[in-house]
Amino acid sequence: MTRYQHLADLLAARIEQGLYGEKEKLPSVRTLSQQHGVSISTVQQAYRLLESRRLIVPQPRSGYFVAPRQALPPVPAMTRPAQRPVEVTQWDQVLTMLDARHDKTITAFGGGSPDVEQPTLRPLWREMSRVIQHNPGEIFSYDSLPGRRELREQIARLMLDGGTIASADDIVVTSGCHAALSIALLAVCKPGDIVAVESPCYYGTMQMLRGFDIKAIEIPTDPQTGISVEALEMALEQWPIKGVILVANCNNPLGFVMPDARKRQVLSLAQRYDIAIFEDDIYGELANDYPRPRTLKSWDIDGRVLLCSSFTKTVAPGLRVGWVVPGRYRDRVLHMKYAASATNVPSTQLAVAAFVREGHYHRHLRKMRQIYQANIEIYSGWCRQYFPCGICLTRPQGGYMLWVELPEEVDMVCVATQLRRLKIQVAPGSLFSASGKYRNCLRINCALPPDEKHRAVMAQLGEAIYRAIEAPEESVVMANGAINGFRQ
Amino acid sequence: MTRYQHLADLLAARIEQGLYGEKEKLPSVRTLSQQHGVSISTVQQAYRLLESRRLIVPQPRSGYFVAPRQALPPVPAMTRPAQRPVEVTQWDQVLTMLDARHDKTITAFGGGSPDVEQPTLRPLWREMSRVIQHNPGEIFSYDSLPGRRELREQIARLMLDGGTIASADDIVVTSGCHAALSIALLAVCKPGDIVAVESPCYYGTMQMLRGFDIKAIEIPTDPQTGISVEALEMALEQWPIKGVILVANCNNPLGFVMPDARKRQVLSLAQRYDIAIFEDDIYGELANDYPRPRTLKSWDIDGRVLLCSSFTKTVAPGLRVGWVVPGRYRDRVLHMKYAASATNVPSTQLAVAAFVREGHYHRHLRKMRQIYQANIEIYSGWCRQYFPCGICLTRPQGGYMLWVELPEEVDMVCVATQLRRLKIQVAPGSLFSASGKYRNCLRINCALPPDEKHRAVMAQLGEAIYRAIEAPEESVVMANGAINGFRQ
Repeated sequence: MTRYQHLADLLAARIEQGLYGEKEKLPSVRTLSQQHGVSISTVQQAYRLLESRRLIVPQPRSGYFVAPRQALPPVPAMTRPAQRPVEVTQWDQVLTMLDARHDKTITAFGGGSPDVEQPTLRPLWREMSRVIQHNPGEIFSYDSLPGRRELREQIARLMLDGGTIASADDIVVTSGCHAALSIALLAVCKPGDIVAVESPCYYGTMQMLRGFDIKAIEIPTDPQTGISVEALEMALEQWPIKGVILVANCNNPLGFVMPDARKRQVLSLAQRYDIAIFEDDIYGELANDYPRPRTLKSWDIDGRVLLCSSFTKTVAPGLRVGWVVPGRYRDRVLHMKYAASATNVPSTQLAVAAFVREGHYHRHLRKMRQIYQANIEIYSGWCRQYFPCGICLTRPQGGYMLWVELPEEVDMVCVATQLRRLKIQVAPGSLFSASGKYRNCLRINCALPPDEKHRAVMAQLGEAIYRAIEAPEESVVMANGAINGFRQ
Repeated sequence: MTRYQHLADLLAARIEQGLYGEKEKLPSVRTLSQQHGVSISTVQQAYRLLESRRLIVPQPRSGYFVAPRQALPPVPAMTRPAQRPVEVTQWDQVLTMLDARHDKTITAFGGGSPDVEQPTLRPLWREMSRVIQHNPGEIFSYDSLPGRRELREQIARLMLDGGTIASADDIVVTSGCHAALSIALLAVCKPGDIVAVESPCYYGTMQMLRGFDIKAIEIPTDPQTGISVEALEMALEQWPIKGVILVANCNNPLGFVMPDARKRQVLSLAQRYDIAIFEDDIYGELANDYPRPRTLKSWDIDGRVLLCSSFTKTVAPGLRVGWVVPGRYRDRVLHMKYAASATNVPSTQLAVAAFVREGHYHRHLRKMRQIYQANIEIYSGWCRQYFPCGICLTRPQGGYMLWVELPEEVDMVCVATQLRRLKIQVAPGSLFSASGKYRNCLRINCALPPDEKHRAVMAQLGEAIYRAIEAPEESVVMANGAINGFRQ
């Protein structure tokens, strides 16, 4: 970091902490130069940087003043996707993003990884070692088809918190929530079928639909209350829809928790039109509120909800331990699990079962909920600070994703291409739409610790967005160049 | 074990070892009674048991004589399945068998588990502990989509032994060979497509086809040389077949290694008719001959062979580490991997990569090849000893499966149902046919150590088969009763 950036960050922190109040005059260039032992031009550069960040405003002949405090940007409006079944595109973009994931020099704002560096995760490490020492025979052998019973018993207990009443026998363990959802889809749908999704919708889910030749119909979704029940009903009337995929609790990417009344409305719609509900509850345990919000499954009286979840976001992705509570589809789900992958790794199942049983899971979860909530506050502040005026920002009620809507003219696909050269990976909104909508949007993974490094990356991201607004053509040209370069 | 059974086994062992020669007279009942300090009736019972095992024959007024030594039963003839595309059935039977797998009181002759109790596997246990201690960050994080590079590099080296030339980038790691094959099928086929299979064919593969709504056409297969090239060509001429699934090396369940010339004939047929080859090489490393037999992939010049394999049979099923070398289908395979399950568990990948790198894999494999070869000898002997005359028996050239063809009138599905009550699980031949053929056949897993316990189980199995021959109606009634009991 250069000297002037360092100074600018210092001043920005003082403004944020209120040491310099709103509309207060800042020290003169000369005073600062003497106080910090830097040159006049360094101070001038720092002030210009703060000005570009909308933190200070110059007044001719009297110096710089703290800018009037901006209110939190508004929440994005209800989305308006094309409401007809479409084939999912965007695979190339997803693949590029996945490819970047394992370059350790890259800052991955676009991925979905949780924070796995917290000390409350250490007992898991001990449980894994213990499992290997005490169960060599079992960890080397085939698992049973539904998964380890001791794990399913722990999961059944955990799910009570969300109102889901299921016995160990009602649960089928899978390789993460991703496999849970894919098996659920394979069990219910055929190629050519139509499935309704929230819009925006997690790109992994979307690519699953593409893989299995299922068409997606994107339903307008409110960033605070979830899928539009009215729009869903209209779609159900118009199209032969097989099911709807919902992330009702701590939605990815929008962060909402659907109000209970709306959850029940969707469920009764599903009953009326006889469709399945694929409930993706992977972030449900990370809700800000305690006790955690209820699942749709908790009101499911006729087994049409296939509840999918995992320990990926709450504990660690590398465990690959997820599950599905398939309701009336249990036989088909077991068969599709057998067809797709047969059995899972026993060692990680045994380790996470012990982690839950010994109470480590709840301690860890409590900690992570606090951390992610605080992170989102900080990242929201940075968005306000570094991004242009006119953005909209979600107010996540859990999880660790932030969704930013930028001015219409910003093409985040181009910006993402430029940022790759700076070793920054972001997820443009278009990944979250079957047909590439939301190019002016962006999902940010706030699980990345909000340290100085990530603040600097957010600032770089903001600069790239400013550039895209100021010279949109140039950024397109640069992006194309970069794409060509990338493909060579 | 009762006293008379113990005595019978002792005498049987002496006969097998040649201490009592062929047609030699055995000691009188009185002599044995004095020698072993048992009652006259115990000796009489022991002799009657040996007689029922066809090891000795009584001669009126002169006592018991060692029975003339039987020649090894003939190899089964070329199979003759119905050569038209059919929908796969038999799922209920497979599920029943899988359900039984995790009851530790059951002897699982029907499953496919390797022997994971050998001391040459201990280093794997150490490598797993080491991985967990040294890489906590990595084992908790997401894997990359194609799988851990250090593992793919080791796999690339291993595959050279079978003539397969592939770089780490050509390999996609999967959750076992099962997932490798299912992803390969999803990448190439659509529902309604037709795929050719050897007949008999592993039931897991068959159920995959059922799960994905792919029709199977079963091709006549010779138990010594593999799929009939002529019959395959006829089928290709008659039906729009998308691909053929082959277990060319150490076939499951028949045990053959396809001669190289035939492998090349099938490959050139595939080129001529432009179909894909799904090569399941999971047992390939367990061939009796060294160096191991070549893969079809090793002659594949246009990338139409999707080679699938894993460490499940050679090392341990609980690792869930397999791979596919997808050739020209790489992009589709990566997409289907993402759609079906996304990424795999990193810890077991890292452990097995170290196990291979440090040379433990080759040591273990050498040992296991010897063990399985010896086991098959012993189990073949027991088949001869305990099963009725007129059986046919395969001569496996690797792997650990033995295929027994029993007299036409034996219904192994019924026998299997009876045996379940005796806590013995067997795999009736019908599991290996799309339409339930081979009801008079049986696959035996010779990886189970040929100890006294398993000898006794083989004897029980033989008795059940004898009963089925002597009173076929009764066994059907019993089986139905058992099924009803089971379902309650």
